[in-house]
Amino acid sequence: MRIDVLSLFPDMFKPTLGQSIVGRAQDDGFLDIHVTDFRHFTTDKHNHVDDAPFGGGAGMLLQAQPIFDAMAAIDEEAQKENYPKGRVILMDPAGRKFDQDYAQELAQEEHLTFICGHYEGYDERIRQLVTDEASLGDYVLTGGELAAMVMIDATVRFVPGVLGNMSSSMGDSFSNGLLEYPQYTRPAEFRGMKVPEVLTSGNHEKIRQWRMYQSLKRTWERRPDLIEQAKLSREQQIMLQDIKLGEDPTMQ
Amino acid sequence: MRIDVLSLFPDMFKPTLGQSIVGRAQDDGFLDIHVTDFRHFTTDKHNHVDDAPFGGGAGMLLQAQPIFDAMAAIDEEAQKENYPKGRVILMDPAGRKFDQDYAQELAQEEHLTFICGHYEGYDERIRQLVTDEASLGDYVLTGGELAAMVMIDATVRFVPGVLGNMSSSMGDSFSNGLLEYPQYTRPAEFRGMKVPEVLTSGNHEKIRQWRMYQSLKRTWERRPDLIEQAKLSREQQIMLQDIKLGEDPTMQ
Repeated sequence: MRIDVLSLFPDMFKPTLGQSIVGRAQDDGFLDIHVTDFRHFTTDKHNHVDDAPFGGGAGMLLQAQPIFDAMAAIDEEAQKENYPKGRVILMDPAGRKFDQDYAQELAQEEHLTFICGHYEGYDERIRQLVTDEASLGDYVLTGGELAAMVMIDATVRFVPGVLGNMSSSMGDSFSNGLLEYPQYTRPAEFRGMKVPEVLTSGNHEKIRQWRMYQSLKRTWERRPDLIEQAKLSREQQIMLQDIKLGEDPTMQ
Repeated sequence: MRIDVLSLFPDMFKPTLGQSIVGRAQDDGFLDIHVTDFRHFTTDKHNHVDDAPFGGGAGMLLQAQPIFDAMAAIDEEAQKENYPKGRVILMDPAGRKFDQDYAQELAQEEHLTFICGHYEGYDERIRQLVTDEASLGDYVLTGGELAAMVMIDATVRFVPGVLGNMSSSMGDSFSNGLLEYPQYTRPAEFRGMKVPEVLTSGNHEKIRQWRMYQSLKRTWERRPDLIEQAKLSREQQIMLQDIKLGEDPTMQ
């Protein structure tokens, strides 16, 4: 997969995209990330990329020209490497809410481009270049850079081969539709706080049941909406009844 | 405000937190950010901070000890500077969904601490240190670093004095409860795409009406949930009727 990012702050991406899973995916050849500073494409003699809004108002807007020209250069380069045009994503509070399904969908693509605004809004005509308007959530960020990094990180995890054997426990949280059960590691007692006995019992069946119960319980208490969507097994359905009655057969 | 971050990847924060609004807020003395690598606090002779889960399973978990000791050191340092203990935020998919209200609430605090996990889960006992469990959205990230940066960015905008005159048009998007109207900047015609005439008319009352109408229309089409929550003025209520009828009096 090739990922292009258009940003006025390319340095923001280096440490994040160079680390951990995203960094490893690049080293392993699953991923090729290019960050383009679209200021290099402005035809303005003072190198400006923004201007005041027509009709008045506070703030400056990103102009269409530098972004259109940067996109054309990226498309040409990607085409030389036989990547298709792919999806072009603009971060926008009015956009489609980003979630696991969206990440999985983007992970199927061969080429993604993220356009990051900063401070200001952007000239409406930039939307002509765009296939996706995406929103991380109902909050306002200074720029699109962090949002693009979040989307890249969550998406890359679904690119086949990238996670490999690194399937982490955090990753399980949504993939089976329920929240994670509590986890403990050494020491068995830390400042008076002990690990639940069942986990050190060596009884694998009891451990399995305890974890299933805890996962259901936490989800029921904190995200009942996920329970409604999850396809529960017969065993899970019976446990859920116990949970609603305040009973815990796994502790017996 | 003092913000502490506990992370195994402190370098990830430098370029992001040094730039733009967050960087300026630090230069201006509104904000003091400290990133602590909690690996320095491990008592393990091989410098490990993680171990296998009790009861078996894939992945490694962050151990309690390094995080407890790093937190104690941070509390001591913050106390010397007369900061209160403040809120301690752990990123967790089961946590409270982050949004503008949450950001405004955090902006009232004098001291915030973010604990960033990475790859793995963490020992359940770490939750004893925590006042807030927060989630950016229903997606899984490699680590808590990006999530913490997003929360810091969105929160810092609400710290009094930070935005100053930089109130950006993007920032308006949620603060009046509606989505932003389309914006345009020079040139008035770009590759055949023209700016709506009203915006270059110089008629401020018409411009105001056009913007209000467009903002309502976009919100109604794309985020009807926001319309329901917004307190519309009488003028907006009448416009909304026109929008629902497909009429646009601002174009007459």
